Amino acid sequence: MPQESGASPRFEIRQVPRPQPGPNELLVKLTLTSVCGTDCALAAGHLGPTRAVLGHEGVGTISALGSGVPSLDPSVEVGQRVGVAWIRDACGTCGFCVLPSGETRCVGLFHSGRSCDGTFAEYAVVPWRYMTRIPPRLDSVPDELVAPVLCGGVTAYKAIKECHVLPGQYVAISGGGGGVGALGVQYASAMGYRVVAVDAGEEKGRYALALGAEHYVDITKEKDLGVAVKKLTDGRGCNGVIIATGAGAAYQSAFEMLAPYGTYMCVGIPPPNQTVNFHPIQFINNGAKVTGSAVGTRQDILEALEFVKRGVVSPKVEEAKLEDMESILKWVSEGKIQGKYIIRF
Amino acid sequence: MPQESGASPRFEIRQVPRPQPGPNELLVKLTLTSVCGTDCALAAGHLGPTRAVLGHEGVGTISALGSGVPSLDPSVEVGQRVGVAWIRDACGTCGFCVLPSGETRCVGLFHSGRSCDGTFAEYAVVPWRYMTRIPPRLDSVPDELVAPVLCGGVTAYKAIKECHVLPGQYVAISGGGGGVGALGVQYASAMGYRVVAVDAGEEKGRYALALGAEHYVDITKEKDLGVAVKKLTDGRGCNGVIIATGAGAAYQSAFEMLAPYGTYMCVGIPPPNQTVNFHPIQFINNGAKVTGSAVGTRQDILEALEFVKRGVVSPKVEEAKLEDMESILKWVSEGKIQGKYIIRF
Amino acid sequence: MPQESGASPRFEIRQVPRPQPGPNELLVKLTLTSVCGTDCALAAGHLGPTRAVLGHEGVGTISALGSGVPSLDPSVEVGQRVGVAWIRDACGTCGFCVLPSGETRCVGLFHSGRSCDGTFAEYAVVPWRYMTRIPPRLDSVPDELVAPVLCGGVTAYKAIKECHVLPGQYVAISGGGGGVGALGVQYASAMGYRVVAVDAGEEKGRYALALGAEHYVDITKEKDLGVAVKKLTDGRGCNGVIIATGAGAAYQSAFEMLAPYGTYMCVGIPPPNQTVNFHPIQFINNGAKVTGSAVGTRQDILEALEFVKRGVVSPKVEEAKLEDMESILKWVSEGKIQGKYIIRF
Amino acid sequence: MPQESGASPRFEIRQVPRPQPGPNELLVKLTLTSVCGTDCALAAGHLGPTRAVLGHEGVGTISALGSGVPSLDPSVEVGQRVGVAWIRDACGTCGFCVLPSGETRCVGLFHSGRSCDGTFAEYAVVPWRYMTRIPPRLDSVPDELVAPVLCGGVTAYKAIKECHVLPGQYVAISGGGGGVGALGVQYASAMGYRVVAVDAGEEKGRYALALGAEHYVDITKEKDLGVAVKKLTDGRGCNGVIIATGAGAAYQSAFEMLAPYGTYMCVGIPPPNQTVNFHPIQFINNGAKVTGSAVGTRQDILEALEFVKRGVVSPKVEEAKLEDMESILKWVSEGKIQGKYIIRF
Repeated sequence: MPQESGASPRFEIRQVPRPQPGPNELLVKLTLTSVCGTDCALAAGHLGPTRAVLGHEGVGTISALGSGVPSLDPSVEVGQRVGVAWIRDACGTCGFCVLPSGETRCVGLFHSGRSCDGTFAEYAVVPWRYMTRIPPRLDSVPDELVAPVLCGGVTAYKAIKECHVLPGQYVAISGGGGGVGALGVQYASAMGYRVVAVDAGEEKGRYALALGAEHYVDITKEKDLGVAVKKLTDGRGCNGVIIATGAGAAYQSAFEMLAPYGTYMCVGIPPPNQTVNFHPIQFINNGAKVTGSAVGTRQDILEALEFVKRGVVSPKVEEAKLEDMESILKWVSEGKIQGKYIIRF
Repeated sequence: MPQESGASPRFEIRQVPRPQPGPNELLVKLTLTSVCGTDCALAAGHLGPTRAVLGHEGVGTISALGSGVPSLDPSVEVGQRVGVAWIRDACGTCGFCVLPSGETRCVGLFHSGRSCDGTFAEYAVVPWRYMTRIPPRLDSVPDELVAPVLCGGVTAYKAIKECHVLPGQYVAISGGGGGVGALGVQYASAMGYRVVAVDAGEEKGRYALALGAEHYVDITKEKDLGVAVKKLTDGRGCNGVIIATGAGAAYQSAFEMLAPYGTYMCVGIPPPNQTVNFHPIQFINNGAKVTGSAVGTRQDILEALEFVKRGVVSPKVEEAKLEDMESILKWVSEGKIQGKYIIRF
Repeated sequence: MPQESGASPRFEIRQVPRPQPGPNELLVKLTLTSVCGTDCALAAGHLGPTRAVLGHEGVGTISALGSGVPSLDPSVEVGQRVGVAWIRDACGTCGFCVLPSGETRCVGLFHSGRSCDGTFAEYAVVPWRYMTRIPPRLDSVPDELVAPVLCGGVTAYKAIKECHVLPGQYVAISGGGGGVGALGVQYASAMGYRVVAVDAGEEKGRYALALGAEHYVDITKEKDLGVAVKKLTDGRGCNGVIIATGAGAAYQSAFEMLAPYGTYMCVGIPPPNQTVNFHPIQFINNGAKVTGSAVGTRQDILEALEFVKRGVVSPKVEEAKLEDMESILKWVSEGKIQGKYIIRF
Repeated sequence: MPQESGASPRFEIRQVPRPQPGPNELLVKLTLTSVCGTDCALAAGHLGPTRAVLGHEGVGTISALGSGVPSLDPSVEVGQRVGVAWIRDACGTCGFCVLPSGETRCVGLFHSGRSCDGTFAEYAVVPWRYMTRIPPRLDSVPDELVAPVLCGGVTAYKAIKECHVLPGQYVAISGGGGGVGALGVQYASAMGYRVVAVDAGEEKGRYALALGAEHYVDITKEKDLGVAVKKLTDGRGCNGVIIATGAGAAYQSAFEMLAPYGTYMCVGIPPPNQTVNFHPIQFINNGAKVTGSAVGTRQDILEALEFVKRGVVSPKVEEAKLEDMESILKWVSEGKIQGKYIIRF
């Protein structure tokens, strides 16, 4: 529970009563959670004030069924594994929810750690109708590898998937050495794409190349990123360009990396004043497109987890203690860690 | 409530207690229902035994909120208009439900008039999470024109939509003078397609042409339907072919109506022994495809209703009495009515 | 043949030798041409210097076959009708040409009236491999209605088609009272869309509404175009937004007219210094996309002509004389004419 | 040149005059060709009588330019590498050619080794407008690995590509141990799919698994192929099912392997009397689709070759002599070879 006092958030660990599932709800006993960059933003108040328990990459098992659930769905059982992700509930009936895959943009979204208590806790309550089942076919994926997919992994996977690039073509990941970006490098590579990672510095380059990138472009060394990317791709550019960082400069330079008919995918969120500029002729001439992606649906999470099960994507994780949350969030916000911290309960 | 004794179903009208909404449910006071061909099949036991009240094209308003609903969704109010359609509930979490638009193939579907009491009644209970809101922007569509869209209309609309035909191209509706087919002729025409209706006899032809078909092919007069359709379409065939009848012969002849890269859409359900035959070379040579469509999602219903609001689709309805249900179902099953019977409560 | 001397272009009419078709080429005797806004830009030198005969909306018949053609394609005959459009040749083998529909972005495009002599002449030579056949099924479309489709019409049609909007949804045409825009209003309406035309002044509004627009937004009266468009569309915005004008302000305001998941389609070309600004969050939040469209393929032309044949699109034309070309181009560039001027030979 | 006398074709090697390129044509000096199963069918007369030199997987360099070519395309040079594939020419203007990717179904297709002399020869003449350029970026792919892609490889690749399956999902290759099928196993695997190969016998199984298949189903051992495939895919079935064999039984059994919304892709051509049977309810219930694919465009060839360049697809080839053609075709038609025979000139 963040306590904003001055510049950096302070946490305290509290004993709170075990929550009770209401009608049609499920009580989930969490085994672990991972820590996401968004938790830092929430803790710092950048996404508005919150008094909720933070956390949205939790994994656990159902420990109690609220009234009504057994008759609604006899297949739901105590002991079944579920994920507790950023989207804790979507209404199911609004103008977005009734669209295909529209649940991620529901007008009444409940966000874990923002509009309801999150996963930095031993228990969570989720609505039966919007639980994220982790089905038995994914039993071989350990909890610590499920957790990072629930937000970071699925965000990377969905953004790449929505580019609709043909397998064998090029995908650039701008910010490919960062949290979401590094998962993007792994996903894009496992999805049959040729990956050009773009980031700052040699260490990030080594990391991205080790994760499966075919090429690395170091923005501290290349003057013209578009020229550099085109050179590495036989003059063609990339069919998908994922901007997995919130830097306005990354957004502006990414246009030049695009192949004709390619997709420029907004993922990272720049500060409000960092806008991007284009001239219509660039789209008229080459048929490229700009669009954006936000986390993913529960189906996207399941698809993303299959890659982990097969071992072709493997989130990098490190164990930490709940007591160290202040330091963890500091390290995460400074980009000092490769991969994710995991906290076990 | 159908009572199977001998060949034709018998009905009785009973006073039953008003149902009560459970937690997270809504009580709907129905104003009217229309009668669908599927009700005949259900009454005759062709879809398995049922003891439920029939009916799945009902319209009404919310008359009570079950416990929990107000806190889950403050926008739901007593008095709000809802539809009560064939799909009364989908679980929201199964392998189909988590797919885009997969709700129509949920493994745990509740069907109105089969797995739960239907709309030939004054009240119905629907789950909050799967209600079919009829939003205020559709207020100008009277209940009697909403009802027929809830099953027949949306089935026709969705099947055409899923063909992904370009506006301006040809769509054939096999069975275009029948219940779903005639709505298909109206929808396809309003969607910017050029419609070739195919059915038996001159009366159906006049009907289909009056509804917007550009051409009519009378199967009682044409020996080779493929040749006839190609002749009417400058030799090209139709980019979408909707088989809106359950006649095996209609299915077999429909292949020859297809344009290259066209879509052959299965909608009507033939008897189990009426299969269809193809040779792979026909798809290899022309890139056409076969697929199928089943009713529609709640979003599809809303989209289909917009056409009615604009007056470009206008379901034909006739008022009848609940007491006449036996006769109505007999007439419907014999195809003797153009349009739908409406029963007001 | 434009002669740039001072601000406005001057023309002279010259007798030139009848061109001869080379091997694999066709000589076309033109019956008429229409005049396009691009001709003004070319005449004024805005697209670089040219000494070619202008014109790229010509219609005629084959009057001679170059050597080789009869053996390559016995179906080509003297007397057959062809269009002579902006794209006079595409190489067929470059990186764009081998992509589906990529011919409009061929790296070696020949442009009529720029890289080769155009249609303000009695004869033109076209390559057999890239002729625009006007097949017999389009015989009922008179030459004067074919011509305006060859550039303006197909540009409007293709831009709308590439939005992949569902029939029944909203399409906004910014510049809907102008040359391409007015054709866009007609096409979008005939394609089953609900059209919101956006332009300046009451006269353009009357024109757009007469052509099939459901709503008109007058930019001289509305302060906030996004608010105005959303109000007219039940709060939803438009699923396709075509910017058919080269005004930078039109581009900037068009973002606010977009419905979630909608398509923002760049068509008009603003001056080089008029760029457009966006913030990535708008795409992340609503899944909309930006892309662009340029004229159309020969297939697009044929599709666009079918609408004219059916009478659901009817380009507005007015006859003029070749001698009046200077005045015509002046009127066109000032936007003083509704529709197109036609010149007969 | 096949000489049909009795059951098996006989060949003779003849000295013929070097062909001369006509206007707008190119003379290609072939360095090698591979031998395709279709050559056997042609030699046996199964595709109608032919007196042409067989062969359609040839690679060579341009050795002379016909008149006109240099002015049409200055980038074409003597020495440039080209492929000579099954589609030797497509008209460019027919109803198919003007559709996106429609060239493979041109109404006036020239087939190598059928309608014109093929690649079992030292020289071939190709039209400038339909040459298959092998651009410099593919220089590292040796001729013997280019050749098998020109027909077998691109057929496999295009069929998989047209299934539009998401990377990470399952693709079944029925006939996965055969010529096209084995290339399909390699392509599907390199494209990020999980491959289930289906064929007869243990040797084919070892081969398919070595090429990248995740699972193998032996039709000589499994009674119910659908059950077997579903078991291997966690009950889901395959999102793409490629039937790369011409056995009618393979076609019939493939339906049961399909996942909901999956694509059943016809590639192999069964004898005319072996048709396939379906009941519409199967498509209505699961939204799957049937379609077909035929070779590929020149763009598809280039895309397919990129996989070979990267080493993720590696056609298996064996050198042979032109003199052995009779034996080669016998072995190929008996399915006794894994991979392709290559003949150098």
